[in-house]
Amino acid sequence: MQEDIFKKINITLVATTHPGNIGAAARAMKTMGMANLVLVSPKVFPSAEVTARATGADDVLSAVMVHEDLKDAIRDCGYVLGTTARTRNIPWPVLDPEEAAEKILEFANNGTKVAILFGRESSGLSNDEIDLCNAVISIPANEKYSSLNIAAAVQIICYEIRKCLPATARQETTVNESIPAATAGQMEQFYRHLEQCLEEINYYDPDKPRLLMRRLKRLFNRIELDENEYNILRGILTAVRENTGKEG
Amino acid sequence: MQEDIFKKINITLVATTHPGNIGAAARAMKTMGMANLVLVSPKVFPSAEVTARATGADDVLSAVMVHEDLKDAIRDCGYVLGTTARTRNIPWPVLDPEEAAEKILEFANNGTKVAILFGRESSGLSNDEIDLCNAVISIPANEKYSSLNIAAAVQIICYEIRKCLPATARQETTVNESIPAATAGQMEQFYRHLEQCLEEINYYDPDKPRLLMRRLKRLFNRIELDENEYNILRGILTAVRENTGKEG
Repeated sequence: MQEDIFKKINITLVATTHPGNIGAAARAMKTMGMANLVLVSPKVFPSAEVTARATGADDVLSAVMVHEDLKDAIRDCGYVLGTTARTRNIPWPVLDPEEAAEKILEFANNGTKVAILFGRESSGLSNDEIDLCNAVISIPANEKYSSLNIAAAVQIICYEIRKCLPATARQETTVNESIPAATAGQMEQFYRHLEQCLEEINYYDPDKPRLLMRRLKRLFNRIELDENEYNILRGILTAVRENTGKEG
Repeated sequence: MQEDIFKKINITLVATTHPGNIGAAARAMKTMGMANLVLVSPKVFPSAEVTARATGADDVLSAVMVHEDLKDAIRDCGYVLGTTARTRNIPWPVLDPEEAAEKILEFANNGTKVAILFGRESSGLSNDEIDLCNAVISIPANEKYSSLNIAAAVQIICYEIRKCLPATARQETTVNESIPAATAGQMEQFYRHLEQCLEEINYYDPDKPRLLMRRLKRLFNRIELDENEYNILRGILTAVRENTGKEG
């Protein structure tokens, strides 16, 4: 069954305030055949309003995964996308929903778990949260009023992914087909290792961080490392530290 | 202003039961730049719930047109589309949302008023209502659960229309716009620097090269480094070599 690859895709709502939106998002997902709803520190959950607005998507709700921390929620995911309406200081790679849907299915097809993040009603995703993403999705909207309801944004993204299903046969080359992507948990370890290493070689001073680590995260998230590449880079960092007498 | 042709397009909700859906539809429309909301015998309107769910789309609500009869609502429209999830006994021309968006803009461009009908929450549009349509739009959905919320359906259709706008300048921002990309010459220097560095920390042996440098080139070429990033990476390599006593 083709929709099985949807099991690789987590719709992840970050710090949602209104329980009605969680229910409506569950319904939106189910209409497009999606089943994995992940909640990161929702303000109210569970609640009768969630169930009411889900209207028949109870199976999505009963399988919901709840996390306190976004990092835990994406730990096993190799491709993480944030949705945003805002323009950022440090530009992140931006995809429109169609482009995003293609990438998502490519990754899911190749066995990689994917997370799509939807931020708070009031303020979206924070910069720190965006830093955890490989790219952001920008939904084309009215410049004067771009505030889509969260469930509406979920609906559009899931709809584009569903539309993209038949075309999955096309193999794109940006993603290495056989090797799964490095997970967010691995990337976290990589950045910690990198930061440690840069500090030891006096390239990075945590007291005057400027934007260095953000820039490097932006750079390495953009590459969408596969596991082999991840291992090579970890190996290089270890070798650097051994040669500066700090590790080994 | 290009969005002016949106003024030719009426989003027409037929016999809506829940006022919240009217508000949510108004908001969905406004996010995509649509302004003409038409209600045909709504069960409850106006109401505080409509306004609450519209969240800032008050202008759409205050311009709402209400009719008792669908025929009156579409009288000045030259192209009428119904949205449906059901298969009908008498087959009607069926468009997917993308095809519909194209037709809608063609008609609107040529001065024709267009109506897009969204039916009741419980039962959609009746056969008599479908008979008034030039074609129906079928939104691709989960065959086992295709019941989209009305505002969600409005969101998808308005989104497809907006996407179809010719000059919807798409943001192609995988490359940082203002900072030029590192040149091929710079990348060559970077790889030479990297190779030297890896050799000195005993991670790379030019006599047994395996595929390491190829893999790293594939990896860093994929990032499409900009000049700032190039300078950061060169800086790191220099710092590594200084700290292993090889440079500086």
